Amino acid sequence: MKNIDFRKVNINDGFWKAKQDMCKEVTAKAVFDRFTDTYRFAALKCTWKEGDEEKAKPHFFWDSDVAKWIEGVAYILERYPMPELEAACDEAIDDIVKNADENGYFNSYFLIFSEKKFSNRDRHELYCLGHLIEAAIAYKRATGKDKLLRAMCKYTDYVIKVFKEENSAGFATPGHPELELALIKLYKETGEKKYADLSKHFIDLHGANDKDGDRLWWAANGNYNQDEMPLRARSTADGHAVRALYLLSGMADVAAEYNDKELLDACKRCFDNIASSRMYITGGVGSSPHGEAFTVDYDLPNRTAYTETCAAIALVFFCHRMFEATGEAKYQDVLERALYNGVLSGISMDGKSFFYENPLAIDLTFNDVDKAVTEKRRYPITQRLEVFGCSCCPPNMVRFIPSVGNYVFSEDEDTVYINQYMGCEAEVGGETVRVKTAYPADGAVKVEYTGGKKLAIRIPYWCKSFSLNCEYELKNGYAYINSDKAELNLDMPVRVIAANRRVHENTGRVAVMRGPVVYCAEGVDNKANVHSVLLDISAKFTLGEGEFLLPELKTVAYLPKVSDELYFEAGDEFTETPLTLIPYYAFANRGESDMIVWIPKK
Amino acid sequence: MKNIDFRKVNINDGFWKAKQDMCKEVTAKAVFDRFTDTYRFAALKCTWKEGDEEKAKPHFFWDSDVAKWIEGVAYILERYPMPELEAACDEAIDDIVKNADENGYFNSYFLIFSEKKFSNRDRHELYCLGHLIEAAIAYKRATGKDKLLRAMCKYTDYVIKVFKEENSAGFATPGHPELELALIKLYKETGEKKYADLSKHFIDLHGANDKDGDRLWWAANGNYNQDEMPLRARSTADGHAVRALYLLSGMADVAAEYNDKELLDACKRCFDNIASSRMYITGGVGSSPHGEAFTVDYDLPNRTAYTETCAAIALVFFCHRMFEATGEAKYQDVLERALYNGVLSGISMDGKSFFYENPLAIDLTFNDVDKAVTEKRRYPITQRLEVFGCSCCPPNMVRFIPSVGNYVFSEDEDTVYINQYMGCEAEVGGETVRVKTAYPADGAVKVEYTGGKKLAIRIPYWCKSFSLNCEYELKNGYAYINSDKAELNLDMPVRVIAANRRVHENTGRVAVMRGPVVYCAEGVDNKANVHSVLLDISAKFTLGEGEFLLPELKTVAYLPKVSDELYFEAGDEFTETPLTLIPYYAFANRGESDMIVWIPKK
Repeated sequence: MKNIDFRKVNINDGFWKAKQDMCKEVTAKAVFDRFTDTYRFAALKCTWKEGDEEKAKPHFFWDSDVAKWIEGVAYILERYPMPELEAACDEAIDDIVKNADENGYFNSYFLIFSEKKFSNRDRHELYCLGHLIEAAIAYKRATGKDKLLRAMCKYTDYVIKVFKEENSAGFATPGHPELELALIKLYKETGEKKYADLSKHFIDLHGANDKDGDRLWWAANGNYNQDEMPLRARSTADGHAVRALYLLSGMADVAAEYNDKELLDACKRCFDNIASSRMYITGGVGSSPHGEAFTVDYDLPNRTAYTETCAAIALVFFCHRMFEATGEAKYQDVLERALYNGVLSGISMDGKSFFYENPLAIDLTFNDVDKAVTEKRRYPITQRLEVFGCSCCPPNMVRFIPSVGNYVFSEDEDTVYINQYMGCEAEVGGETVRVKTAYPADGAVKVEYTGGKKLAIRIPYWCKSFSLNCEYELKNGYAYINSDKAELNLDMPVRVIAANRRVHENTGRVAVMRGPVVYCAEGVDNKANVHSVLLDISAKFTLGEGEFLLPELKTVAYLPKVSDELYFEAGDEFTETPLTLIPYYAFANRGESDMIVWIPKK
Repeated sequence: MKNIDFRKVNINDGFWKAKQDMCKEVTAKAVFDRFTDTYRFAALKCTWKEGDEEKAKPHFFWDSDVAKWIEGVAYILERYPMPELEAACDEAIDDIVKNADENGYFNSYFLIFSEKKFSNRDRHELYCLGHLIEAAIAYKRATGKDKLLRAMCKYTDYVIKVFKEENSAGFATPGHPELELALIKLYKETGEKKYADLSKHFIDLHGANDKDGDRLWWAANGNYNQDEMPLRARSTADGHAVRALYLLSGMADVAAEYNDKELLDACKRCFDNIASSRMYITGGVGSSPHGEAFTVDYDLPNRTAYTETCAAIALVFFCHRMFEATGEAKYQDVLERALYNGVLSGISMDGKSFFYENPLAIDLTFNDVDKAVTEKRRYPITQRLEVFGCSCCPPNMVRFIPSVGNYVFSEDEDTVYINQYMGCEAEVGGETVRVKTAYPADGAVKVEYTGGKKLAIRIPYWCKSFSLNCEYELKNGYAYINSDKAELNLDMPVRVIAANRRVHENTGRVAVMRGPVVYCAEGVDNKANVHSVLLDISAKFTLGEGEFLLPELKTVAYLPKVSDELYFEAGDEFTETPLTLIPYYAFANRGESDMIVWIPKK
């Protein structure tokens, strides 16, 4: 099973065209401006000194922010010239290459402060390198310029020397994973096996070495860095969610590259653990703000949901790799769940601002009540911001959206797979595939393919009935056809969803989905307080126009009786109240507002 | 309206006899032992010095713990000799009197460490004095020994000098209220008006003075100490719940004593605020652990409910005073709600251990999930303890239970009021009133009264139908009768209760009550996880025997379908499951267990 690279997939219509246009026209420049304001580009010049402006003092993870932004700009440059941003990339790359030390090492913070390199596992040096490698590959592919790539190869060679040959670093494995998956990309780009071998080296040693720098961290932080056991022994996703999922992506890469069944099995178990018990209905993962972490099965609180945007993106990365390794549709199902919900909620509809955390409920009335005295119950922010102190999510979106075409097609020897529906024209094995669809606005998908392979069209998990205007064989979540034209119609009724009863937070509550899209009720659309309404599970919904790319949903919900009493006999008196729902990804685009996904049942 | 003192009310049968026996036979001694273990009695000797055991180092609020315990023992001594504990009281009193300074001042911590007296408003000196005064009065009444009372009068005279005459203290009003209400008691005991005047002085100045020690505290801590406005302007209960309610009790006392309508109106407004929007169904108050405080209207989270035992006791104190001032039944209704639920949950069924916080839900599965990394979501403890670092609640129970007879009767010129139902024989105006009842086990109450006044029997808020075997006139929540014998039968069906829809925490949920008693479902009684079950609001309940003084309730509840899937289409498939509920006050008496009060509706 081979993925069709997004560079061969021209998204030319519909939902994702709109998102890609926004990213190209607004987001890339907006993030550039905020990173300029916050000295992230200036840091690369490595000139900051004591006495200079304190705000401009580099942080050890800043380089990764710029790297992800360069990677994203490179993806846009594949199709569109952006001279201003390309020049900014070139300048940043010049700074990096110029200021790298004699070994090729580069981290603006460490170079400026002359901290001891590779001594503290949590200082993100290898994480930054991973993102710089991904940026370097992307930029070379898009522009042909390989200056950064050559520099990063040199740096990586130095890492091989320090971590493998000399074993002279203070720790054995990256504290924040990312390099693992980047190294496999680098191997594929350069053909140099040593880079894949380094990735395998880290995967082998992670949780399975007695280097002080690894052990200390583990002792102090539990499973935060996924250190508590060798990776091949893992069965659950634990600790910092982004770290866990970048690491699982690297594991899946290494498993595929080295045909490592034991490692792949560990990946499968961890995926199943996430999909069956540690994932919000939005595909958001990492329910706890403490450690930005996975916790235990079925612990999915709504108001305090952390569900970092980067974690949802990382879940897409992991699912994508697992599908490639197995061909199983369940990975596409979870990928789709994250794609349309937990990922997209991370960016505003105008493309300028971002959620780091993506709560599943906002209750403004009670959001701040505990700040009165000394502490405060911790709730996520209620409005997106343009930049964060730790601003990993915005540039992750800059690289994710332009490369979303990655998730449309795969192929194997005799079949072309259509995994996700986006209006596009793609080149597969020298032939053309065309997909026409407004998905997920509706479930109609037209496919044309001129090549000689079979087509396998995914029937998503949420779809209980569909029609296809040609013969097909249904196998493992895909409809296999031999026709070179097909019209698929996925019935897309509004569905009322329950959670597994072990999710105590949602006992007696339901959520609303249409197709792959989770809906929410926002205060701004609804006269009744959305935290008081009850929903009948047999409610009828009508589709309204909607200002956020997809239809809004309208239904009649129920309000318990109004009373001045605090407690009274429960009864069956309700008043009907109109209820409008919008796609979850679009919440918080019209000022602060109450929001609810899991609505109590009538 | 005049209260009948508990010393005239001999509780001789039923529910409260059992509780009083437990307190006399177990609790008083158990708390004595724990206070001995933790050096609270030793502290009174004022001999601790640097180098001595660190654990024995006195805390500035320790004297109040001992004082409340002495007060409680005195209440028991009214009816039962307890020579060992009386000797312990005498010894403690000897230590206090011996170590008081030349002005009568006593606080073991301040005397040992020679800290500047009356300089720091939050050091509880006046709070401790208040409790010592209450202890002194109680002990003198019970034993005739007035040594402590005389000492406390001397100390109080010194407080009058410092705070009123010289105005030389670093602050103007008590940081932790309590002295205010104690001073009114002291006035009533001694006839010395100056003590009532000092109370009024504090009430007048509270939130209405510019003394540094008061202002600093207010600036730093918001409404924590009820300082943000003059007390007569208050309309809401805010800040530290115990402080707020002791202060409101003092305000009600001063309002009654000085016929201060403006002050009484403030008390009325604050009560209405509590009863209509800041009180759990259990009568627990103070929903936030941050500042042990009231927050905003309708903010009543269940799992993190702070609802300190002392706050529920203090709410009883306040309601009791408000009823005396107004004769309005609503104060008895709230008093009863707290009495049978939020107060009694504070003590174990064996009388030895205590809750400081009284949560309305325990979910063991998810109680500790966030401790993984650096912080932890804060949930109350799940098991009662015998003593706390701040151990105010246990001795509060020692004084509350033996004096619970206070809440049975009041009288005015022509009527004797029966406010709460307890099996007892009482002396009212030289005549005898007998009440025979198993209340709240059932609603049958027999009353005999040989005096010449009318009887007014309260019909509780929860009772929708009752029968009375004589003529009566229903007025303001009381049935007025002229008969000298009456048999009242309060229908006591199990009731399913809803919360005001503004309490978003309980949207779609219901609670179960029988009579004044709130029920809960505990894991230990139920095979199904109590956090997964759904309750039909028309469920039928049967009464089982119950091991905790009152019947347990049995019904059929519903479990959503079992599924390995995390999310799926909501349906109407449920399996029936037996559900057993026990009185809320009895939760956590059989080891750690899940517990729920507000159950989602089917």
